[in-house]
Amino acid sequence: MRLVTYCLDEGPARLGAQIDESVIDLPALAAFHNEELPQDLLSLVRAGDVVHETARRLLATDPVAWPADVCRPLDEVSLRAPLRPGKVIGVGLNYVEHVEESSRSLDTAKELPSRPVLFSKPSTAVTGPGQPILHNADLTDQLDWECELAVVIGRTAFRVSEDDAFDYIFGYSIVNDISARDQRRSGQWFFSKGQDSYAPFGPAVVTADEVPDPQSLDLELRVNGVTKQKSNTRHMLFPIARLIADITSGVTLEPGDVIATGSPSGVGAGMVPPQFLVPGDIVEATVEGIGTLTNPVIDAR
Amino acid sequence: MRLVTYCLDEGPARLGAQIDESVIDLPALAAFHNEELPQDLLSLVRAGDVVHETARRLLATDPVAWPADVCRPLDEVSLRAPLRPGKVIGVGLNYVEHVEESSRSLDTAKELPSRPVLFSKPSTAVTGPGQPILHNADLTDQLDWECELAVVIGRTAFRVSEDDAFDYIFGYSIVNDISARDQRRSGQWFFSKGQDSYAPFGPAVVTADEVPDPQSLDLELRVNGVTKQKSNTRHMLFPIARLIADITSGVTLEPGDVIATGSPSGVGAGMVPPQFLVPGDIVEATVEGIGTLTNPVIDAR
Repeated sequence: MRLVTYCLDEGPARLGAQIDESVIDLPALAAFHNEELPQDLLSLVRAGDVVHETARRLLATDPVAWPADVCRPLDEVSLRAPLRPGKVIGVGLNYVEHVEESSRSLDTAKELPSRPVLFSKPSTAVTGPGQPILHNADLTDQLDWECELAVVIGRTAFRVSEDDAFDYIFGYSIVNDISARDQRRSGQWFFSKGQDSYAPFGPAVVTADEVPDPQSLDLELRVNGVTKQKSNTRHMLFPIARLIADITSGVTLEPGDVIATGSPSGVGAGMVPPQFLVPGDIVEATVEGIGTLTNPVIDAR
Repeated sequence: MRLVTYCLDEGPARLGAQIDESVIDLPALAAFHNEELPQDLLSLVRAGDVVHETARRLLATDPVAWPADVCRPLDEVSLRAPLRPGKVIGVGLNYVEHVEESSRSLDTAKELPSRPVLFSKPSTAVTGPGQPILHNADLTDQLDWECELAVVIGRTAFRVSEDDAFDYIFGYSIVNDISARDQRRSGQWFFSKGQDSYAPFGPAVVTADEVPDPQSLDLELRVNGVTKQKSNTRHMLFPIARLIADITSGVTLEPGDVIATGSPSGVGAGMVPPQFLVPGDIVEATVEGIGTLTNPVIDAR
């Protein structure tokens, strides 16, 4: 399933599944069949496998019979962030060429890290597809992009082995790990990466069964149509299973938590001369099989 | 009010107010007066000033009339973390002498930071008074303590001035900012400070009206009865109002969010030779006017 959170006009957020160019309202579809499904994606994730199977089964019923309010054209709805994660754990320096460009342009080490470099973004930083990235020139003139595969956790995970790690994944999405390079604080990344709107997330969460090999997905990021990042998730230094095993050796992951698995090279800080986002820019982050997460940058002074 | 979250035996968590050596169940007190109060502290914080005043008014009624289930001796209940914050923002290097000891023993700069050094601990790290701090010798042999005044946010705050900052504070508590010094990752503190049980929080949240000057509170931390840290919140490099103004210049603070305002000197890493926590230790963090947060350290391999 390709799960989305959407609004009609300015109405409340609703849980949908995207099929081709349509969005199917899952609670409405369930009601039509005299069944029930959660009203939002976080509740659906938490509800577990049996409920996920119910959603799959209902989506496989004959669409000809569905009432009109179950199915909307994608271009008539507004997508939102799929869910609000309890936490977003980011992974720094997880692509070899990005380690190299960071050591040139930022203050990180030249050597490959021996353990995953973990940081976090608060849930208040999360924003949805189409929503603005807030550029506050009073705080930064080094606003940068980072296209990342996002792993959405499905089950509470603590001390999970690499072998078992994939059992704990609900699905995959995209996070653009927006970073104000000049707002690192004595080396800590929280304020540089944790500000409101610095975690565009979406446009959909694709369930794990529809992503056969998450370690072979093309990633690409464009600013105003010009490609800046282009890589493949096979180049991760610490692959997804290792990240989950490492994080859960000490930190419990909960349903709906997100791991932003790291950025390939091609960030603005690494360009010669450096390039940064300014109001008016349009940033598009694409991950193969997931979609494209598009956000405009606006002046938010 | 001195607000607590407590359990009777192994029952569900309940919202109480501590008066002397008694805990008054707030929803039960409200029900006795045919009124209503939220069932948990986070909901009470979110409910706003009018509801907080209702709680104060009910607590001022004549205790002689209260039915038996409203009031329990403190030593017959188990306290829990007062609430689960959406986010815990920590402040590093916020006491001058701690900056100095950190530069000697850790990898931080000798100079005083020019801006608050912000990091975060996830809500999964929060634990309550009396609950164990998990010592996993497979991951760390440098588990350290940091006694901190915790600020609990009362209202959604974005771009708040220093002058207005105190309007957004619900109350004060204590966080012990437990840190596995050897789990910093390429300088990032998240995994060293964000593991499960690394944010003991409590024992109570004292509302702001009962803390006339939060910048003149004695702090003290003891391990097995021996004083390790002793200072006063007047020695903060960036005082509370400045922290709130700085954080909210980019990050929205929400009701129930916690700012751990930084640790004075006297951490284990700064001792000669260094001292770290081991299973069996008892850590007591005291803040004047708030109370003492006591946690045992256990072997959690």
